[in-house]
Amino acid sequence: MEQLFHWFDLMGIGVFAIAGTLAAWRKQMDGFGVIVLATVTAIGGGTIRDVILDVPVIWLTDNSYFYAIFGATALTILLVRNRLTIPNNALQIADAIGLAFFVVMGAQKALAYGTSDFVAIMMGTMSGVCGGMIRDVLCREIPLVFRGELYAVTCIFGGLVYTQLLALQVAPLPAMLAGMLACLLLRLAAIRWHLTIPVFGRSGRISK
Amino acid sequence: MEQLFHWFDLMGIGVFAIAGTLAAWRKQMDGFGVIVLATVTAIGGGTIRDVILDVPVIWLTDNSYFYAIFGATALTILLVRNRLTIPNNALQIADAIGLAFFVVMGAQKALAYGTSDFVAIMMGTMSGVCGGMIRDVLCREIPLVFRGELYAVTCIFGGLVYTQLLALQVAPLPAMLAGMLACLLLRLAAIRWHLTIPVFGRSGRISK
Amino acid sequence: MEQLFHWFDLMGIGVFAIAGTLAAWRKQMDGFGVIVLATVTAIGGGTIRDVILDVPVIWLTDNSYFYAIFGATALTILLVRNRLTIPNNALQIADAIGLAFFVVMGAQKALAYGTSDFVAIMMGTMSGVCGGMIRDVLCREIPLVFRGELYAVTCIFGGLVYTQLLALQVAPLPAMLAGMLACLLLRLAAIRWHLTIPVFGRSGRISK
Repeated sequence: MEQLFHWFDLMGIGVFAIAGTLAAWRKQMDGFGVIVLATVTAIGGGTIRDVILDVPVIWLTDNSYFYAIFGATALTILLVRNRLTIPNNALQIADAIGLAFFVVMGAQKALAYGTSDFVAIMMGTMSGVCGGMIRDVLCREIPLVFRGELYAVTCIFGGLVYTQLLALQVAPLPAMLAGMLACLLLRLAAIRWHLTIPVFGRSGRISK
Repeated sequence: MEQLFHWFDLMGIGVFAIAGTLAAWRKQMDGFGVIVLATVTAIGGGTIRDVILDVPVIWLTDNSYFYAIFGATALTILLVRNRLTIPNNALQIADAIGLAFFVVMGAQKALAYGTSDFVAIMMGTMSGVCGGMIRDVLCREIPLVFRGELYAVTCIFGGLVYTQLLALQVAPLPAMLAGMLACLLLRLAAIRWHLTIPVFGRSGRISK
Repeated sequence: MEQLFHWFDLMGIGVFAIAGTLAAWRKQMDGFGVIVLATVTAIGGGTIRDVILDVPVIWLTDNSYFYAIFGATALTILLVRNRLTIPNNALQIADAIGLAFFVVMGAQKALAYGTSDFVAIMMGTMSGVCGGMIRDVLCREIPLVFRGELYAVTCIFGGLVYTQLLALQVAPLPAMLAGMLACLLLRLAAIRWHLTIPVFGRSGRISK
């Protein structure tokens, strides 16, 4: 089981590294800017999660996370260089997959620490979005999480499915897979059909 | 006493959540962007404080912080929606109140950890300003703390009043209240009369 | 030896404080904005390093770090005020010296924690670049680390020299000095001759 969690973590990190690489590509960064951005995207959320939970930051004593990052980054560069174009929304889709992994893994770690379901969902959301937020801040983009399309909602939904299935005595593994799938599908649907939640700021006026 | 500290913490978090909601409103963010921004503003500074002091991050095992955030956010949205205008400087005033709570609570926690008065004032200032700084960075604004009007000075002043009263054997509670009041009044005065400290960069030239 | 590490740490912090002060000067910030920015630049990287390694954050119980920051800031302000111009690239050179100290000290702390050489180099790079990244984000600049000129490479190179000399049974002190020198010289050479690594994003196209 621990072994499986490790693989889930690695996969989330790999996909986030791809998203970071694509973001760096769009900004035409140099070779090491790419690696820095891929690494930040990939381990930022998990590092903040581990630091807040006060558990050992996982990549400190485990090089495999960096193999995942460098492998994913190298693969992405190769693909982009050779195909010359990458499909629309590739960054958003890679981000969605990484999100699904991180939300559920973050919630799982928080529950193991002994938090309530509520805080576990919140920690899952945080570990999912923080790496990408740091990436976007460093690129001087408005973080994806604020650009509508149900970004935060999908995290909460995935965390909700996972924690509530656990509460219903579903075994850990199916609960995790269901949570990941719920998060991923809702996010992909939101990207595909541009689902949004109503903007709250429109109806009022603020005097300057 | 512990109980009272908890309430002070909750109040600071609630007011910072209001400030975060108002900032999101100005940026016309969607419903969950608002909650993310309110939450970041509210718990950002306290989380950094707890992580640096290496004490358990307080909201991990206590849902009441999130009730305070969501309550404050919902209330703000209701008020803004119904009155249609919010007074000038509402964001700055909410920020000032939250600042007063956080500066003194941050200094108190640092002293409990065993730091010098100096570091306690510094930790108070950090926990006061960091949540707002993260909010401003995410909104791509220049952080309030750099926009003059004695922002950092008020934090230092509040921390100074609190720690020095303690050093003079004043009981903890009056010392805290005096520190909060000192911080709040100086900040409000700075906002009201546009008090500033001289900009240091004007007299010199830097060759590009 | 511990004593010497402490001095290296202090020196790195002083030089980074100078770099932060110069950055604030360019942005024409007010007096306390300068101190905030100098402090963030100086202790940002080391704080993140200590938090991730889960060792006590060093400035919490040691005021000497703040004496170094304030001394360096005051000195810089005096110099800038009196000479009226500062040499081209002064910010970059101060940054390079601070970088050299922090990279090697960060790697040393990580090795003491028991990490692999690889992670130690990575931690050294992180503690070197994070303070400056926070400074640049707060100033709304694109972080130096992404602006080419071998910024990340110099960190990796300095960490590599230090860890590999240690692995070759070189005594700690000469290994540290060699690592710092390697980092500093490569960075200065990169600034002087505008050495860059090829930008990776140019050859491909991304459909929008």
